[in-house]
Amino acid sequence: MSQSNTPLKRKKTENGYSENGSTTGATSNQIRELKRATTVDYVYRDQESKDKIKPLNGFVTPLLTDLYQITMAYSLWKNNRHEIPAVFDLYFRKSPFGGEFTVFAGLEEVIRFVSDFHYTKEEVGFIKEMIPDCEQEFLDYLSKLDSSSVTLYAMKEGSVVFPRVPLLRVEGPMILCQLFETTLLCLVNFASLVATNAARHRLAVGKEKVMLEFGLRRAQGPDGAMSASRYSYLGGADGTSNVLAHCFFGIPIRGTHAHSFITNYSGPDELLDASIKDTNGNVHNLLEMSQKYRDELGYTATNLSELVAFVAYARTFPNGLVALVDTYDTLASGVPNFICVALALHQLGYKAVGIRLDSGDLSYLSKASRKLFKQIGEQFKIDYFEKFSIVASNDLNEPTIIALNRQGHEIDVFAIGTNLVTCQAQPALGCVYKLVEINGSPRIKLSQEANKITLPGRKTAYRLFGSEGHPLVDLLVDDNDMIKDGSKQIPQVGKKVLCLHPFEEQKRVIVTPVQIEKLHHIVFEKGQLTMPLPALNDIREYCFQQISKVREDHLRNSNPTPYKVSVTKELFDTLHNLWLDSVPIKEMK
Amino acid sequence: MSQSNTPLKRKKTENGYSENGSTTGATSNQIRELKRATTVDYVYRDQESKDKIKPLNGFVTPLLTDLYQITMAYSLWKNNRHEIPAVFDLYFRKSPFGGEFTVFAGLEEVIRFVSDFHYTKEEVGFIKEMIPDCEQEFLDYLSKLDSSSVTLYAMKEGSVVFPRVPLLRVEGPMILCQLFETTLLCLVNFASLVATNAARHRLAVGKEKVMLEFGLRRAQGPDGAMSASRYSYLGGADGTSNVLAHCFFGIPIRGTHAHSFITNYSGPDELLDASIKDTNGNVHNLLEMSQKYRDELGYTATNLSELVAFVAYARTFPNGLVALVDTYDTLASGVPNFICVALALHQLGYKAVGIRLDSGDLSYLSKASRKLFKQIGEQFKIDYFEKFSIVASNDLNEPTIIALNRQGHEIDVFAIGTNLVTCQAQPALGCVYKLVEINGSPRIKLSQEANKITLPGRKTAYRLFGSEGHPLVDLLVDDNDMIKDGSKQIPQVGKKVLCLHPFEEQKRVIVTPVQIEKLHHIVFEKGQLTMPLPALNDIREYCFQQISKVREDHLRNSNPTPYKVSVTKELFDTLHNLWLDSVPIKEMK
Repeated sequence: MSQSNTPLKRKKTENGYSENGSTTGATSNQIRELKRATTVDYVYRDQESKDKIKPLNGFVTPLLTDLYQITMAYSLWKNNRHEIPAVFDLYFRKSPFGGEFTVFAGLEEVIRFVSDFHYTKEEVGFIKEMIPDCEQEFLDYLSKLDSSSVTLYAMKEGSVVFPRVPLLRVEGPMILCQLFETTLLCLVNFASLVATNAARHRLAVGKEKVMLEFGLRRAQGPDGAMSASRYSYLGGADGTSNVLAHCFFGIPIRGTHAHSFITNYSGPDELLDASIKDTNGNVHNLLEMSQKYRDELGYTATNLSELVAFVAYARTFPNGLVALVDTYDTLASGVPNFICVALALHQLGYKAVGIRLDSGDLSYLSKASRKLFKQIGEQFKIDYFEKFSIVASNDLNEPTIIALNRQGHEIDVFAIGTNLVTCQAQPALGCVYKLVEINGSPRIKLSQEANKITLPGRKTAYRLFGSEGHPLVDLLVDDNDMIKDGSKQIPQVGKKVLCLHPFEEQKRVIVTPVQIEKLHHIVFEKGQLTMPLPALNDIREYCFQQISKVREDHLRNSNPTPYKVSVTKELFDTLHNLWLDSVPIKEMK
Repeated sequence: MSQSNTPLKRKKTENGYSENGSTTGATSNQIRELKRATTVDYVYRDQESKDKIKPLNGFVTPLLTDLYQITMAYSLWKNNRHEIPAVFDLYFRKSPFGGEFTVFAGLEEVIRFVSDFHYTKEEVGFIKEMIPDCEQEFLDYLSKLDSSSVTLYAMKEGSVVFPRVPLLRVEGPMILCQLFETTLLCLVNFASLVATNAARHRLAVGKEKVMLEFGLRRAQGPDGAMSASRYSYLGGADGTSNVLAHCFFGIPIRGTHAHSFITNYSGPDELLDASIKDTNGNVHNLLEMSQKYRDELGYTATNLSELVAFVAYARTFPNGLVALVDTYDTLASGVPNFICVALALHQLGYKAVGIRLDSGDLSYLSKASRKLFKQIGEQFKIDYFEKFSIVASNDLNEPTIIALNRQGHEIDVFAIGTNLVTCQAQPALGCVYKLVEINGSPRIKLSQEANKITLPGRKTAYRLFGSEGHPLVDLLVDDNDMIKDGSKQIPQVGKKVLCLHPFEEQKRVIVTPVQIEKLHHIVFEKGQLTMPLPALNDIREYCFQQISKVREDHLRNSNPTPYKVSVTKELFDTLHNLWLDSVPIKEMK
């Protein structure tokens, strides 16, 4: 964000904002349009100032928020409620994609946003314009606002998480907590969604195969793509096609070539130079060599311009040919042409890498290609031919991959685009951010649907593990009860704990944990990070470990077993008493 | 993008890139992480330098691309194919959401990207690192590359568009056209998808009601949200809750308050000051006045802390109260509490605005609320009470709105979030970018599926209108045929034109157009914009006009009539001859 103190030359506009910031004349054509002077500075993470970490994305500013956060902030200030200590929980109510687990992601960006939180002069000017009648004193207050009075508790990024357990707990003055809401939700919702989606795709693909994210062109905008690449990698992908994501996050990058590279050739005359040096430095004609194999193998009906394109690419990357084989006909042209070039490369001391299938029946085509690779490998006594990498990239998603596994295939690399990055099966995660305590008193938000009722109070979550090393239950303990009762409330290894479903009292279980993990940690306090930001690869590693611990039936693709999220007896009582107190008793007349 | 010439201090890394840019050691922990020094400069559009327009989003750089574009570029350069004149079409094959129309959006960002296209020193450095064996001469070539040799043809932003008609046609050296691919797709795909989604929601909501976009918190990342706000407005929304989108694009902004504002109060003691000045400047106690109405109307069972919260908000915005009424119980608490405060405000000379329903049966609750507003309005002889604005905001989408319309409701404002901004019904549009001509020769990309075959050659589209002012057919004409045959190929008003389905020869129609519109225009040429960028409101206006012209059966929500996209006889022949020439004839043995 610009730290410049130069006042912005502001234009008078006639937008006719009414007092709560809503506009009149919604269809007026007298709107302003602004542009952002874009700056991408490539700064290495370890050269970043430790005191002043900033959001990665230039749009992540205190104005990336809903208007009502600012009108509420003004009203809190006017009613002198702004400095009252508040506690907010950020959590979701249901895991996405019909599953029973979620991967928590987005924490680093949350910390960057919170740490950098402040309004520039220009931004305060915009607020003044949106709420023209607001008092100058409020604007002055906003100008000085920063996050030094906020404490941020969080689960570790990359954690496997479950419904209703807070991912974040924000403690601080009511006004700041409120002003954070929309931005925190925006940063956590999509990050966690796409990390979870990647984890599910990884489970479907299996550990042995390679999974790549190829979704940039279909993503929801440029940052939708950047986030998708980052969090797909965190949750399960081995690499991306997105160059900028590679530059920013160090994600391994992969790619082949496109149909246009094939169709840009219409015949051998267009290959002006077919020469290639062999590994000893002697010059050969790669096209002639490839064509010799074409004749020898009887592949004379293949599309010749496709062969020329493969040769052109192989000349440039003699050890890097992954040929896209479906431009004209996969088995009648693409695969045989690839084999001819691969044989020629072999003769020169190089190794082709493999093929990419981008249409048709991937099970059949991959098996047919593998069969041919084996046959040619045997015929020419070249071992690695049967191991050519077969990349598949045609509208893959979780169900398709599961179906392919069931049917059998010879795919080594799954390149997943649209369905991974846009999370087609469910394009939004429903994280919410709710006030749970104010001025030391627990608060509740009711709903006709029990599932939508908030769990009141400042809570800490403990994960209780069974004897086989799997987590059994997440238990939420009211911090105030802990203060009152001391260690009695904290679950202990080897001691029985009563765990209750928060809303259905007959659903309860006694657990004797073999291991206990406290899930919430302070990540930001007194204006400072309390720990260094972990590297993306470490978060990814942690995520993989976490998933490996979870019982398989919770991870299952269809009809998974719900994981238990419970509360203590004391928290259950607090919740239900508060609930009864808050609901008006209707009178039947 | 940074124009700085200061060389970036580059660190040696050991990523082990193989020759085609794919990495080994994908799970190595020695990755780099970079951060972006974020800069949001608020620059008014009319202060922007006309010669140097830049992308709005800092991520939109030539590196926001797939790796294979860069490896292909290198191979084109190595094979001396890079400067050959090429033509690429950007189009989609099927309209989204099961519909038969699409709104084209994203053009301004495309033009900004193309206009600003260049590699910085740092970026060339990254490329060198990804393709370590590439020749320095190639890197020097990239350093000097700009878009001055490219001509960009486009439909107007905001146009109603149909499958296979190019939205963009890019003409220029093969290498540049190729290097644009991924970024152009990324910029057009989501923009057009969300604009179309908004247009469909607007058709469902109807012209008389207000439609707002409230999706920031659930959007696919920060820019997913910014794009969603911008293009939702373009396609149909009247406003947004997103403050930053308001600041950048001048979109009208709206908002109320959240549940946390209600639950932050637990009783009347917490309202330290209930005073309010009436419109004459005399001080009153708004809480006492509201409570008096509460007693008078027998609403004594309502949640008192909710009443307090409404009073707190109304004190701040006495003409702006849109009360969120479902925190405790919509009809037993929220609506009666709102009425009490609204009556008090009325007595002081102010007007409350209305209520927001965020859960429950929106049809029933809106009708019950309206009934009560009418009744109280009659009882107290206040005309505007029956016209209180009822805002609905609970997981709305197109089918829900259509169902509500069928069932009857009293909603005035539809605030649509998740489903609008993430395009839940179909979260990606499948635009593709295909080579259609190289060096003056038409090119084709085949597929087992006829629908995936490209229409070869440099084509111009004409929209032919019937006597009732509706468009009847989009006709694609081969520009080379036009050059050969002159005006014979160009459709003319009052003259019969034969229009053929591109793939099914028996599907053909003769049209006598009453009006003809040429759909493609040059928007960028010789490094310059050929016309000023239209303002967002003008694009929106154009979009609304375009939709109003389309026959209703094409716009219908379910089972719409497909719109005809046709080719001339000459183009049909070119396509089919090329098709036959390119497919290998398989031999049955």
